[in-house]
Formats: sequence, C-alpha cells, structure tokens
Amino acid sequence: MSTVYDVTTWVIPGDPNTTAYTDIGKIINSIIADVKAQQTSQSSKPGAVIYIPPGDYSLKTRVTVDISYLQIKGSGHGFTSLSIRYNTSDTSNWWEIWPGASHIKVENTDGNSEAFIVQRTGNPRLSSIEFRDFCLDGKSFTPTENSYTNGKVGIRFVSDNDSCRVTGMGFVYLEHGLINNNADAFDVTDNFIAECGNCVELTGSSQASKVTNNHIGAGYIGFSVFAEGAEGLLVAGNNVFPRGRSVVHLKNSNRCVITANRFHAFYPGMIDSEGTNKENLISSNHFYRVVETFPPLQGYNNGKDDLYGLIHLVGDNNMISTNLFDYNVPTASVTPTGATPTLILVADGDSNFISNNHGVHNIATNHVVLSSTSTNTKVLDSGSTSQILSYTTSYTLRPTP
Amino acid sequence: MSTVYDVTTWVIPGDPNTTAYTDIGKIINSIIADVKAQQTSQSSKPGAVIYIPPGDYSLKTRVTVDISYLQIKGSGHGFTSLSIRYNTSDTSNWWEIWPGASHIKVENTDGNSEAFIVQRTGNPRLSSIEFRDFCLDGKSFTPTENSYTNGKVGIRFVSDNDSCRVTGMGFVYLEHGLINNNADAFDVTDNFIAECGNCVELTGSSQASKVTNNHIGAGYIGFSVFAEGAEGLLVAGNNVFPRGRSVVHLKNSNRCVITANRFHAFYPGMIDSEGTNKENLISSNHFYRVVETFPPLQGYNNGKDDLYGLIHLVGDNNMISTNLFDYNVPTASVTPTGATPTLILVADGDSNFISNNHGVHNIATNHVVLSSTSTNTKVLDSGSTSQILSYTTSYTLRPTP
Amino acid sequence: MSTVYDVTTWVIPGDPNTTAYTDIGKIINSIIADVKAQQTSQSSKPGAVIYIPPGDYSLKTRVTVDISYLQIKGSGHGFTSLSIRYNTSDTSNWWEIWPGASHIKVENTDGNSEAFIVQRTGNPRLSSIEFRDFCLDGKSFTPTENSYTNGKVGIRFVSDNDSCRVTGMGFVYLEHGLINNNADAFDVTDNFIAECGNCVELTGSSQASKVTNNHIGAGYIGFSVFAEGAEGLLVAGNNVFPRGRSVVHLKNSNRCVITANRFHAFYPGMIDSEGTNKENLISSNHFYRVVETFPPLQGYNNGKDDLYGLIHLVGDNNMISTNLFDYNVPTASVTPTGATPTLILVADGDSNFISNNHGVHNIATNHVVLSSTSTNTKVLDSGSTSQILSYTTSYTLRPTP
Repeated sequence: MSTVYDVTTWVIPGDPNTTAYTDIGKIINSIIADVKAQQTSQSSKPGAVIYIPPGDYSLKTRVTVDISYLQIKGSGHGFTSLSIRYNTSDTSNWWEIWPGASHIKVENTDGNSEAFIVQRTGNPRLSSIEFRDFCLDGKSFTPTENSYTNGKVGIRFVSDNDSCRVTGMGFVYLEHGLINNNADAFDVTDNFIAECGNCVELTGSSQASKVTNNHIGAGYIGFSVFAEGAEGLLVAGNNVFPRGRSVVHLKNSNRCVITANRFHAFYPGMIDSEGTNKENLISSNHFYRVVETFPPLQGYNNGKDDLYGLIHLVGDNNMISTNLFDYNVPTASVTPTGATPTLILVADGDSNFISNNHGVHNIATNHVVLSSTSTNTKVLDSGSTSQILSYTTSYTLRPTP
Repeated sequence: MSTVYDVTTWVIPGDPNTTAYTDIGKIINSIIADVKAQQTSQSSKPGAVIYIPPGDYSLKTRVTVDISYLQIKGSGHGFTSLSIRYNTSDTSNWWEIWPGASHIKVENTDGNSEAFIVQRTGNPRLSSIEFRDFCLDGKSFTPTENSYTNGKVGIRFVSDNDSCRVTGMGFVYLEHGLINNNADAFDVTDNFIAECGNCVELTGSSQASKVTNNHIGAGYIGFSVFAEGAEGLLVAGNNVFPRGRSVVHLKNSNRCVITANRFHAFYPGMIDSEGTNKENLISSNHFYRVVETFPPLQGYNNGKDDLYGLIHLVGDNNMISTNLFDYNVPTASVTPTGATPTLILVADGDSNFISNNHGVHNIATNHVVLSSTSTNTKVLDSGSTSQILSYTTSYTLRPTP
Repeated sequence: MSTVYDVTTWVIPGDPNTTAYTDIGKIINSIIADVKAQQTSQSSKPGAVIYIPPGDYSLKTRVTVDISYLQIKGSGHGFTSLSIRYNTSDTSNWWEIWPGASHIKVENTDGNSEAFIVQRTGNPRLSSIEFRDFCLDGKSFTPTENSYTNGKVGIRFVSDNDSCRVTGMGFVYLEHGLINNNADAFDVTDNFIAECGNCVELTGSSQASKVTNNHIGAGYIGFSVFAEGAEGLLVAGNNVFPRGRSVVHLKNSNRCVITANRFHAFYPGMIDSEGTNKENLISSNHFYRVVETFPPLQGYNNGKDDLYGLIHLVGDNNMISTNLFDYNVPTASVTPTGATPTLILVADGDSNFISNNHGVHNIATNHVVLSSTSTNTKVLDSGSTSQILSYTTSYTLRPTP
C-alpha cells in the first residue's frame, strides 16, 4: 500500500461526497485511519506523508494526529496580509483577497477550536510529526477584524512529544497559531507566523527546543513567542515584528538563549518575564521600539507603560549583553506622562549580569533600572551613571565611559 | 483542475514543439497563463506549484510571475564551480562540465536580461511567491570568463512584494543573481549563491527581511549582499566567501542586524557603507581578510586601499561589538605602500559604539580610525591606545588593557 | 527518460526479486547506474532525484554515490529515541518501537560499514549532492544498547566534494552519523542527529562549511561536532544536547565561528581542542554543565575531570566572549575530589582574548585558568580576581568589577 496520500484524490470509505474542498479535516482523519489500518504491527509503523496541493480547502472537522512520523505537507506558506485587506475600504479591484498556496480555511463546525490537534495516550511519546509548507488561515476575527480574537487554534500539541517539526508554514488570523504542550526537541523553523493573536506558545514544560529563522508577529492581545517552563529554548535568527504584547515572554523558563534576532515592537515589555527565570542569555539582539504606525490599530496597546522596560526581567543570573536598544517614541506618547522610559528593568532577582549594551533614544531614558528587591546585579558598559537608576545599593556599576 | 504542474509534461496550447528543454521560460509562462485562466474568482486564487525535475533546460524567454502564491520548485541547487572549470586548461577528461540538478541555462533570446521577473500592478502586493531548490546558471561571462559580467539576472522582483521566499536555490555565473526591489518580509535562506557578479541585492527600500543561513560569494565587481534603504534587515548565519567587492554593503540602511556570520574577503571594505546608516548592530562576526589566492584573479581588486577599513562606516549610533578581525596580508601587498591598515574606519557619523572587538594581524594595524568629522564615538576594549587613531577629539576611548 | 525515481517502484534489471524493502542499497545503486547510463554526455549530466516514500527499508548493500547533483530525498526525519526504548524494561504495550518516516535500517551484509559512501576519482570534485528528509537508523548497539558502538556509518563522504548538503535528515543509533572528508562549502542544516556515537565529523580539511540550525547529541564515546583542519567553519544556531564527549571538538582548526548555540553537557571539555587552533570566535553561546540524569548511563563519562575546563583551549588568538557558563554539579560528583572546577582553561597558546563572559555555579569555580605555557592572554570581565587562576605572569587581567 502506498504511504503517500493526496488530499484531493482520497475518498472516504462510505462517504464519497466529502472532498478536501468541503472538509479537509475529515479527509485527513480518514487518511490517518487508513494509515493505522495498514500499519498494525508494532514493529513497522513508518507513518505516511499527506500532500496538500495548492488549493482552497475548508476545514470543518478537527484533525487528530495520533501517530508518529506523519508528515503533512503542502506547496507554499501562502501568507498574505488580511490586516491590510480588512482595513482597506474597497478591495473590489484587488487581484485576490485571501491567503493561498496550500490554503486551509479553519472553519470548524465540530465545536472544536483547533484545526489540528496532536495527542496520544500511552507510550512512547509521539515523535517526528512534521507540518510543512502549508497555510492555516483563521479567515476573520470577531467582534472586529482588528481584535485578534476568534477562538481558533492552528495546531495544538497536547500530549508529550519529541522531535516534531513545524517548518515552512504560514499562519494567519488565528487567535493561536501554534501551541505545543510539553515539547522535547521541538523545531519551529522557517515559518511565517503573523497576524495571529498569539504565534508560538510552548506551554507546560519544554526542553531543548528551537524557534529559529522565522518571521513572527502576533497581535496586541498576545504573544509572539511564549515559553513556559522552558529548559534551554533557543530563539535565534528570527525577525519578530509588531504588534505582539511581547516579542518573547518567559515564564519560569531557564537557560534559554535569545540571540541574533531582530525585534521590532510598538509597546514596552518586548522581552517580558513572569515567575522566576534563571540563567538565560539575551545577546546580540536588536530591539526597536516605536509607536504604532497603522492608523486602525493606534488605539491599542499592551497595557504596559514606559517604566516597564523593553526588557522586563524577573529572575536570577541572567545575562543581557551586546544588544542594541533603540527607543524612538515621541514625548507625547510616553506613559506615564513625563516619565523617563526604561530600557532594561530588573524588577526582581539576584546576580543578573548586564553588560556591553548600547542604547539609542530620541529622549532621555534610563538604560537600566534596578528595583529595590533586586540584588547583586552587575551593570557594565550599558549606560552612563546618569542612565542607570537603582533603588537598591546591592549592585555593581561600571558606567560606559 | 490540478494545481501541480510539471515543466516536462506541459504542452503549450497551439505550440506543441516547444518543450522545457528548448525554452522553459515559454513553458512556465504558459503554465502561469493556465493558472490564471483556471483561477478567475477574486476569492479563490490559491496559485500553483510548478515542478522542475532534474534536467538541463534552456530559458530563452523571460518568465513573468504576476500571481501570488506561485511556488516554482526543483530538486536540487546544482551548483558547481564554473570559475574553476573555465580556468582549467583542459577539461576534456572531466566527468561533467556544467551545473546540474534542476538546471536552467539562462540563454534569453527575447532581449530581456532576466530569467524571472516578478511584477504586477494594482493591489494587493504580490505575496508568498517561492523559488525553491533549482539552479539558475548564466553559463558564461563576457568578455572573459573572469569578468563576472554578462548582463544576466537570475530573479528580479520589481514591484512591491510581501512574504516571498527564495530558498535552497543555486545561482552561478549571473551578473546579478537575485534582486528584490521594495521587499517586505522577504526571506532568503539556505541558498548557494556564488560566482555571480552580484549575489543578493535589496534595492529601493525593504523592511523586515532576512538573509540567513546561506552560502554567498560575489565577484570582485559586485556585491555579495547589498541593502539599500533597508529597515531592519537581518543578516545572520551566513558563510560569505570571496571575492565580492564587499560582503555586506549598506546604503541608507537602518536598524539592520549583521550577526553570527563568517566573512572571508580578499579586499578592504568588507562591510561597506554609503549614504547614512543608523543604529545597525554588527556583532559576533568573524572577518578574515587575506589576499587573492587564485592566480587567474590575482590581478583584480575592488579599488579600495587598506586605509578604507575592513568595516567602513558612515552613519550614526551603530554598534560594532564582539567581532574578531583577522588581517593577514603580506607587507608587500598593502596599499598604499607602507600604510598601516585599518580594521574599522568611522568615516563619518555620530555616536557610534565600538566595543569588545579582537584584532589579529600579521602586521601592525589600526584597529579603529576615527575621521575628523566623526563625533562622539565610543571605543571600548577594541585595541590598545596605539591601535586607535583619531583625527578628532570627539570620542571616548577605553583601550584594551 | 525521467530523472525522478522512486525506490518502491524501481526494478533492478535482471533482479526483479530485490525490492527497496529487502535491500534499498541495491535498489539505489541500480538507479544510480541507470542515471549514468542515461546521462553519458559530458555536457549534460544533471543527475536525478531518488525518492524514498515513508516506509521501513532494509539496507544490506552500501550505496556508492559517484555522480554530482544527485538528490536522495524522503518524507521525514523519523527520529525516535531508541535509548529510551532499550532502557525500558517492557515495551510490549508501546505503540511503536522503531524510528519511522522514510526509514532506512542500516543492516549491511556486504562487509561494509557505511550505508552511503560518496566517492569519485578524477575531476571535478563531486558537487551538490543532497541528502534530505529521511532516516538512517543503526538499529542497535553492541555489546550493549548503551555502548554507542556498532561500527556503522550513516553517510561518509570520502573524496573531495563541494557544495553538498545534508538537510532535514534523522540519524540514530549509528556509531558515526555523518562523516565528510575534505569538504568545501558543505552544508549541514535542519537535521536531527542524536543517539549516535558520533554525529558530525569533518575530517581531513574542510573549508567554508556550515553546521547550522540542527539538533545534535552524540554518545559519551564520541563527538557531537568534530572539525579537523577546518578553515572557517560556522557552527551556529544549534541545540547540542548530551551526551557527547564534547559538543564541538576542534583539531587544528582555524578561523571557525561558534556562535548562537545552546550547549548542554554531562562532562567537562564541552568545547575541546586538539593540536593548534587559531583565531576562532566563540561567542554568544550558552554552556550548561550538569551531571548525567539518566540512570542507565550514569556510569559513563568522557574521562575528563573538572579541571579540564568546559572550554579546553589550545591555540592562539582565539576570542571567547559573551558566553554564559552554567556549572551545576554536586560537590560529591566533582573530580578530582575537592577540586575547584574550571570553566575556561587556556591549556596552551598565545594571545587568546577572553572577555565579557558570565559564570553561574552552585559551587566556587575558576572562571579562567591560564597554564604556565600560555602567553599574553587577555582576560576581561570574565570573573573576579579570585575566579581567575594563572600559572603564568604573561597575561592581562581586568576582573569583573
């Protein structure tokens, strides 16, 4: 039996009227059932590849992936800006109005939120599932097209998983693009995940995972990259653009590496932290903070003020080094009014190491602010004496000469 | 109708004698025309994938890509060194003499320079066009095989475009490999672009684009990576080898990140700048400058002398940090004769920040030279006092101890 | 003739009984013979693509790749942890017990060690061979499943080669995953190479190669990344996890760049060096050293003690900067007993530059130790005076304030 399936030619046994165009979810579930029916021996379950040719497909039934080694693959990420489209008064003369390529419209009628769920009980963990080169499109937000909310999830990994990959994909207009719970060696690379409420969320606890070489940009309601309980996450080589409430949010995450990224944001709290985060390395990144430029979204923000810090740090022994912080906000837009904005805020924690950072700003800023509960912070070559503000005496300063 | 096309099986209506082998350009144009004929509804234009199997194809007619979501895809980048071949006196016993894989010989007879042009009027911008895994081969330079000139262009994006990708491609012996004018979120990754006059040129103004994880090496006449009016370009994880006139050339480009690259060059001006370039971050790169080693090309250079700087900087608030500069040029090859070579030249600009750089050299060099018009440069831990030469008093120095 | 082959449909002339399932090696050799038979003109040898659909294939005969531009491609890397499986007492209820996707079981009966060998005499060098998206599985180690030895090699490049790629692959339970001898512009990206005795070995002398964006983790007997005679190797964006005897081993390698990686290890000598290694840049990496956590492997180590250094450096003018070293080993596990562990040991060499590193540790460590034969080392902002131990007076220290 072939292990190569095409959603456009598969016929569901007993249901010849369902097609990939009417419900690709039901089609893929039927293919997965066939793979399982063909591969019944414990010692031979190589999985399959399910190909999605370019086309517009409606997904009405959630796909449950409960076999290892399944590759679901299209021929293009198919992103286009729905935000621009929906904020254009007249698109009647437009060439096209939807995303494309291998384009799945997430239109569940089954009561579920997700287009794809990855879940299995028992052992071993699901391994090496790959989503590649297709588009997951939530189509529309509610109550308005600028709300970033619609309850839809592109892909949700629920049960423990190992060495899975999401690569070359497009995600657009989903409230949650990609969620992975308890990932091990997860690989998110070469994707285009934008105009989603949240883009990449690693929940539960992950280890040894990578988010590399992506274009990512969430909405003001959510996270571009969210890491909870992460051990050793590598976030490198990404272009993260507005307008997520943060670019990377660390929650009880340790020993992560955030390096070689370009970060662009419209709000404070670009790298945000929650809980206690230890021994993370944040180096060689470019932080650019300006104000919202797109008129329809100028009314929104993430609720943080300019004292919150472009990096808001809670935790111990983190290293923040060799970053360029570029703050360019008109005085009238600074909050609280008249405040001196903060580039790096050590809100709490011990023995953080902040060195060799360059701050550029149109108005005076505090490069580093140390809270009264922070202890033993070292601040080296990251601003002049007047650019370092400390509410504690427990720190060491070598001002930039 | 299928959205999956194969250039080797497509028959042009009314023109059965043209094949992909005789004119792949005409074939692809016919396929694109078919896609447009099939996809006439504004609300359903998913595009298509055009597959180019391994083979030797002649392109005589320029392809015009004027639809979004088109993926043109082969099965291999197919690079081989034509420079070595053409500079070998006798190749009669060679196994093969041309590039290969999905190999397009750029042999326009239509009066155009380009193999592929991407262009459309109206709205929206073209989105998510992908070129993947094939080879564009200019075949020959004129007037000599070492001239890097032939007027040929591999791919030229002309009109505004969004979220397009060039990945896994090979480009060889083209005067211009890849040009993109007014790119947004352009992605150039995993390519092999070498022995071209110019490799990657982002012209007009680009934003939020990436050139990552590539092998790149232009000829002495041109640019390995050229960025004009770029906002937030990320150049990371590349191996850029000789012999381009520069490895990265910034022209009025701001807030770019050049990090985690290996740069190898035969001339000064490895990172060159033109116009005014602000707030760029250049960190964690390795710069290796030696002399040309390939006898047939030892007569050429980029016209810059050793006072020009391995980094030649014009602009404000740029950060150059944590780079290793390795200068190894025989005294007799230094120009002007007897000069003390420069590693970093701040030719003009305000408030540049140069810190924590290591210089290695076979002869004495000036690690940093500050021009008389530069102001407020900070130079920290980037050389001893004797290795910093300033023509202005407007700077701060902390010499490497 | 088609240049697109499928291993499941190919029939060996005169040998209809051999299938890809019984001996995929013999099938691929027959396909390569066919390619050569079809492509006899020196001026037209584009090669071919050989597709391996998902399935379980046995390789009994070594494949010899002796043509350029061959792409061997599957539909998934198919990794699963055999280490967990073999160390689980009862897997009878497991869903599956083997790796999968395009899954080649390396079971040579031909007396050879390798699944794939790449080798050709004459000129030019083999170019642009690509291995993509399939799984090479050594199945079992001997004498025990925790020995990491079985004599098997996944892919060995023997003769000089240029611009070849290994991408999207899985390697598991091979004594040697990937070996390349005398590589030029070799590209190892997006792979999953784990639970192999050795993962990536660049032997002989390589130049301008890249090991980027991979998951890599060797066994205690071998190397995760080994570079011999390398010129300008770029190791970036990788997640290297235990339990290799080192994460990167440099042997007479110069001007390499090791940056933006996450390194996790159970032994000292994470970056190890042998011979003389010059002008390498090691920056923006996270080093995490803990003890073995997996009970079946707690009896093993790499034979190095805690005085060896997380980085063990022999060579000149190397730069080690902006790394975070995290040492967390219970006192009782430190060797020699009672020793003060070393983070960076300059065992020998001149003019190394160590700056802006942050050390985190559960017990007191020496951040930098300089041997009696080391000369002219600079140690800046990499530890307090008490954390720097020198056996020579030939060094410059600026302690972290």
